[in-house]
Amino acid sequence: MNTMRYPDHLEKLIQILKKLPGVGHKSAERFAFHMLDWPKNHLLEMGQTIIDVKEKLQCCKTCGCLLEKDPCRFCDKEKRENHIICIVASIKDVFLIEQTGEYRGHYHVLGGLLSPISGFAPESLRLPAFKQRLKDLPISEVVLALDATLEGDATALFLKKELESNQVSTSRLALGLPMGSALDYIDEGTLARAFAGRRSW
Amino acid sequence: MNTMRYPDHLEKLIQILKKLPGVGHKSAERFAFHMLDWPKNHLLEMGQTIIDVKEKLQCCKTCGCLLEKDPCRFCDKEKRENHIICIVASIKDVFLIEQTGEYRGHYHVLGGLLSPISGFAPESLRLPAFKQRLKDLPISEVVLALDATLEGDATALFLKKELESNQVSTSRLALGLPMGSALDYIDEGTLARAFAGRRSW
Repeated sequence: MNTMRYPDHLEKLIQILKKLPGVGHKSAERFAFHMLDWPKNHLLEMGQTIIDVKEKLQCCKTCGCLLEKDPCRFCDKEKRENHIICIVASIKDVFLIEQTGEYRGHYHVLGGLLSPISGFAPESLRLPAFKQRLKDLPISEVVLALDATLEGDATALFLKKELESNQVSTSRLALGLPMGSALDYIDEGTLARAFAGRRSW
Repeated sequence: MNTMRYPDHLEKLIQILKKLPGVGHKSAERFAFHMLDWPKNHLLEMGQTIIDVKEKLQCCKTCGCLLEKDPCRFCDKEKRENHIICIVASIKDVFLIEQTGEYRGHYHVLGGLLSPISGFAPESLRLPAFKQRLKDLPISEVVLALDATLEGDATALFLKKELESNQVSTSRLALGLPMGSALDYIDEGTLARAFAGRRSW
């Protein structure tokens, strides 16, 4: 195979598109060649929208989620239940949980999950801000809505220990069968946890 | 399910990312939330690179491929074989063929394949420019390097007819087994074409 190079700017565009999650070289090439056919105003709009991200999307200093207006709609003490707070790893998780319509309490975005591999250490978690909120709100329950992965488990254990001294109960999301799943397709670990967590019915 | 909306700018970013080929709503959301965590200079670099596409990447008026310097490296009569020209649908195809190292002739980018569904009609093909080139170069063979799809077949048939009056032979890429493939995994159509096109060995 020949080492045929693309023009510099195309190569640069491909390298930049590869920074998107799950996008490898082939996909980035496909995106880039597709963009060559776009009208100029499409490119301008996309470029400007990306450039404006940090300016137009700011995070609430309290919960860490995206702030649209001041005060943050997720931190509004008038409209949210003030006795319960849900800890999540990322901003996206807040929107996922809001979409279920099951929860009306407060949120707290950690900013990540503990991971020795990717170097995400306890100091990186937005934990001091959380401890302050436990003082400011009449919290009685902390829900840990973290991934059911090694990193999620490690973070949950760490948080449980950190919160021991506070007079709050902690809970984690239920582990079990995903909706619509057949036992055939469920892995052993999930099935075991679903058994252990069975409920009278 | 609740109709929880994202902040406006995030929604806009997601809609724009959905314009990339093969990117649906879920992937666009994943890209957008990932970008929220990028440092400002990453966003600035990506945005600016996209905005600059049309300015930094121009097409050669002769072959229709990307022009890095004038004259176009694919149209250089000193360095390319001048008796053969290869018709491709898109700019990317030129780079794919160059990478094989099998071909040293000229190229001509059509700009698409005939498709009644997507409304790509014969008038949209860069055909007048091609006919002019047949007069300018001592062409004896036209290679149709088009997709082995319905659209590719339709375009090849159309071009064959258009070129009938010229004293050039036309050829198409061989149809057959892809390298490394096992007969087990090959569809009937491909196998039939591979049989029909068998060569003494």
